[in-house]
Amino acid sequence: MLVLKALESLMQIHGTLPVNVRVLIEGEEEAGGESIDHYVRTYPTNLSCDAAFICDTGMPSKEIPALVNGLRGIIYTEVEVRGAKGDLHSGSYGGVAPNPLHTLAIIIAGLKDADGHIHIPGLYDKVREASEQEKAFWHDDPLHLNEMLLEEMGVSQLTGEAEYPPLERIWGRPTLEVHGISGGFVGEGAKTVIPAIAKAKISLRLPADLKSDEVFVLLERRVMALAPEGVEVTVRKVHGGEAVMVPIDTPPIQAAASALREVFGKEPVFIREGGSIPIAGLFHDILGVPVVMMGFSLPDDNLHAPNEKYSLSQFYKGIRTVARFFEKMG
Amino acid sequence: MLVLKALESLMQIHGTLPVNVRVLIEGEEEAGGESIDHYVRTYPTNLSCDAAFICDTGMPSKEIPALVNGLRGIIYTEVEVRGAKGDLHSGSYGGVAPNPLHTLAIIIAGLKDADGHIHIPGLYDKVREASEQEKAFWHDDPLHLNEMLLEEMGVSQLTGEAEYPPLERIWGRPTLEVHGISGGFVGEGAKTVIPAIAKAKISLRLPADLKSDEVFVLLERRVMALAPEGVEVTVRKVHGGEAVMVPIDTPPIQAAASALREVFGKEPVFIREGGSIPIAGLFHDILGVPVVMMGFSLPDDNLHAPNEKYSLSQFYKGIRTVARFFEKMG
Repeated sequence: MLVLKALESLMQIHGTLPVNVRVLIEGEEEAGGESIDHYVRTYPTNLSCDAAFICDTGMPSKEIPALVNGLRGIIYTEVEVRGAKGDLHSGSYGGVAPNPLHTLAIIIAGLKDADGHIHIPGLYDKVREASEQEKAFWHDDPLHLNEMLLEEMGVSQLTGEAEYPPLERIWGRPTLEVHGISGGFVGEGAKTVIPAIAKAKISLRLPADLKSDEVFVLLERRVMALAPEGVEVTVRKVHGGEAVMVPIDTPPIQAAASALREVFGKEPVFIREGGSIPIAGLFHDILGVPVVMMGFSLPDDNLHAPNEKYSLSQFYKGIRTVARFFEKMG
Repeated sequence: MLVLKALESLMQIHGTLPVNVRVLIEGEEEAGGESIDHYVRTYPTNLSCDAAFICDTGMPSKEIPALVNGLRGIIYTEVEVRGAKGDLHSGSYGGVAPNPLHTLAIIIAGLKDADGHIHIPGLYDKVREASEQEKAFWHDDPLHLNEMLLEEMGVSQLTGEAEYPPLERIWGRPTLEVHGISGGFVGEGAKTVIPAIAKAKISLRLPADLKSDEVFVLLERRVMALAPEGVEVTVRKVHGGEAVMVPIDTPPIQAAASALREVFGKEPVFIREGGSIPIAGLFHDILGVPVVMMGFSLPDDNLHAPNEKYSLSQFYKGIRTVARFFEKMG
């Protein structure tokens, strides 16, 4: 939307665009984006270009323009546990019945401990070492992003791997989260059911060089090792996407930095994001071009949560920045 | 219903009942039964009697009439965990955000291990030793009830404390089950949410001498000890009920045994049930009378589960048995 507005503005002013533009619209990302993945892999020549531009990232605050040089990938799975042939009453069978919900608790607690360490053998082996510059940024936190994290979440302390700076934990480290657990009874009051089946949605965020398919195999192996006897456990891949790291010294990235500097009046910072934009990794790997990731959402936009918003002033500044970026690319 | 039919039959045949009968109907048991608890405690003289009779138990098979001489009590709770002020996106915050679902997994896995041992300090201290006769019945399993358990559940192996016979596990040991976990996303597909709040319904079945209120305190203490920093955890009591053990050498129990013998043509067995009938404990403790627990449901009745049923032939035999019991009591 914002990018199309920028292109429209350029057309109105100049009657033409400063560069050739191919627009690829992705409406399936939150559902895994299988179609666009297939398209990019099958018809890369339709998309041949000098640079890819994605406007789907954010800024640490409205005062700090930013370019994203790294994203984590993701592997999203569903773990299903089957016990008895039907739901059981805990009075009659509690003590000898398999409880799939209890099995899931054991599996989830075994995958990640309270200190944020993930116990999946082999997971951490391939994590790419960050540059000294990035490490210093994470450690020194000159923009006081840690405080922002606390405020955005409304908590008094950050969790996770204490031996890494918070910015490294969300940008440069693999993380594992459980998103929901179904099975049994969750209504008001009490029901003493032992469910026959329970499921958990579990995903990992993966920094550069951890491939989603490889991590899926490691995860599946670990889940099976954690599962007690007497239940049937399956791990299903829901979707995966790859991490991306882009070099910042290329002309398209420098053009984007220059556009941000002009519109926001501040030197842009290079940051990573902890989220995943699978198409970014795909452009990088398949098209072999620099991927410019510039975006204007703010930390309090409640991304993917109730009361999601997008600031109008960011929207208008964003249009101007993107238009300037295309002019500079020309 | 069955008992009222038996009383109606006796009235039709004799024009009067052989004993004075007070009928107390409980419609709230599955919701905790607070009202009847209050009534029995407040007006015990309204209920003064020589024996209490409850028709809410089962038989191991339609060939084996049974009287129940022991029931487990229950403490049913809800554990709530609060993390951030709102739901979060795992890309932006995964690595530093508290995840209440993960906390619940750690708590549940910490309360009971895969071998069925409950890790709540003090829980096992007061469990009443069973009689030698009961222990032999549990160990020898002359009715092959273990095989029935396997078949009813449709599983190839029983779970739980391997050092105790299966019948002791469900009748004489405390057990802990999780019945449902809410929070986050459980729909089709994927959503990378870290929920702000998650809840688990957790109950314990309690053999004789473990008091529900005392166990609640032990459970709460243990949950708090298991909870990591950075989350707020509360344990709420939903309802509790006490275990009951009745001596079998009293005239009302022997009258019931005799009625079963006549109608079913077999010597009745004395068994326990793993479920809870809070009113049984209340009659026993407050009214101070023998509690006769005779019932006719069968193991495949799918108690509290989909396709629950009640056999008509058991229903009719039950009416005859209950009528004979009242005659013998007269």
